[in-house]
Amino acid sequence: MGGMISRDAPELKDAQVTIVGLGLMGGSLALALQSHVAALAAVEPDPQTRRLALERGIVQTASAALAEGLREADLVILATPVGAILNIIQELPRLRADGCYLLDVGSTKAAICAAMDRLPKPFAAVGGHPMCGKETAGLAFADASLYQRQTFVLCPTTRTTESIWRLAQAVIEKIGALSLSLPPEVHDQRVALLSHLPYLVAANLMRLAAAKAGDDAQYWAVSAAGFRDTSRLAGSDAAMMLDIIETNRDAILHELRRFAAQTGELIRLVESDDSTRLQAWLRATQEEHVRYRRARDAVRERGA
Amino acid sequence: MGGMISRDAPELKDAQVTIVGLGLMGGSLALALQSHVAALAAVEPDPQTRRLALERGIVQTASAALAEGLREADLVILATPVGAILNIIQELPRLRADGCYLLDVGSTKAAICAAMDRLPKPFAAVGGHPMCGKETAGLAFADASLYQRQTFVLCPTTRTTESIWRLAQAVIEKIGALSLSLPPEVHDQRVALLSHLPYLVAANLMRLAAAKAGDDAQYWAVSAAGFRDTSRLAGSDAAMMLDIIETNRDAILHELRRFAAQTGELIRLVESDDSTRLQAWLRATQEEHVRYRRARDAVRERGA
Repeated sequence: MGGMISRDAPELKDAQVTIVGLGLMGGSLALALQSHVAALAAVEPDPQTRRLALERGIVQTASAALAEGLREADLVILATPVGAILNIIQELPRLRADGCYLLDVGSTKAAICAAMDRLPKPFAAVGGHPMCGKETAGLAFADASLYQRQTFVLCPTTRTTESIWRLAQAVIEKIGALSLSLPPEVHDQRVALLSHLPYLVAANLMRLAAAKAGDDAQYWAVSAAGFRDTSRLAGSDAAMMLDIIETNRDAILHELRRFAAQTGELIRLVESDDSTRLQAWLRATQEEHVRYRRARDAVRERGA
Repeated sequence: MGGMISRDAPELKDAQVTIVGLGLMGGSLALALQSHVAALAAVEPDPQTRRLALERGIVQTASAALAEGLREADLVILATPVGAILNIIQELPRLRADGCYLLDVGSTKAAICAAMDRLPKPFAAVGGHPMCGKETAGLAFADASLYQRQTFVLCPTTRTTESIWRLAQAVIEKIGALSLSLPPEVHDQRVALLSHLPYLVAANLMRLAAAKAGDDAQYWAVSAAGFRDTSRLAGSDAAMMLDIIETNRDAILHELRRFAAQTGELIRLVESDDSTRLQAWLRATQEEHVRYRRARDAVRERGA
């Protein structure tokens, strides 16, 4: 340990925190945590991002090397894409034989929590996933309010001690998020349906329309806010999505197949020329959307 | 004719205009046209909406009866769902044996333009479709700026004279929209892909998620902005969507089948465990989204 906090009763305000990856998520976390920790360091490979972070006083120190950035950390927060998180967890026992407190904010949880499970005893680790983001990536778009009233999922591992659990809860409280504990597999199933399937559906829509549009920019004159919103997730970072698909393949395939089956049913319904049934389907959809919005607003207001 | 304008050289500023249907589209049109026409009347079945429109001075007269509302109109603009537009066009020859100028703002164009084609000679008619809207329906949400810099498609019919064409262009100019002329069938094919398919995809997503969520409002805690935006169109008005599907069934089925085929390909790609190919697909999608956004912004800036 960095020595600032005792293993048994760590407090966030006394902790030296290192955030690995100063993109939108890591940068926003740094901005939101700044005044609530003893010291804030970053590990970030991009020199321009490091310079920006230091110039703006977002972190006190920033290094390219993991070994250097982790040396003094009490609490390490991994905020890179999932593939890099898995690599870093593998390196941790070598870099920090004394162990440390560990939290991540990766998009899938089963693979990461399994890697945390395999860490040696001196480590105390918990998986995390804040349910927020923006279409615009990078530290330049970081925003201290990004996590406000957003759900922050915590997934216990066999390395989750009471101390790391309390530290993670303190992080969530200080950034204004709403904590929700879920087993990693349940988390991954839910985000397969509520986040990864929407991405793939948006991507599919984008591909179909782009194939029709070709080089005719004027083609898009007929597109409006509906297409814009339904296809928005197609702009997601390809590298991030590759990691997500590769670490949540089974759950994603399950949801994609359900979606395909339901699309088949919908085609038969539209073909059938049965106005009454079609109308019932359309009405049920509209009502479900109302119920979803109501539930979503209620969830967000927990933190109001 | 109402007598205010001559048949040969009508000008919008001298025209008595009647808008049929004071929902979001008709109400916004009234607000945007107010100061550019000689008189503005409305036909609207809902008494509360009529009262609101008169109280706020959005129109000078409002009636429930089509016959009354159309009697003095030089230019009639139909702003109801497609099914009602088709019914009204059928009644027009009986209501206005002397003919009138006619424009509509319905979501599909082939059926409406075919009905306009069948109007007797004294009528001069053109199909229209402004590519805008909001999730919130009704006059209460009407907004004079709704049409600003949005594409307004015009579809010529065999009843389209130079005079109605110029009147429609004047309407488009005054409300700040951008005119685009398309044959009705081309319009319907494009909106099948860019508007109706996105609705059905959003609806499908909503149904799948709602089936999993059941009565557990807490289920939605894991949903974020991605699901919200991708599913937004599922909240569209069921009656409006029924009319759209029933008047654009073939084009919609064509796009739904293409979407289903591509979903099948995507499932095979995700199953294949071929990172290189998957990465290429994800990157191409992200690049297409960038190109689409650039083209969309360029189209909107025509009117800046």
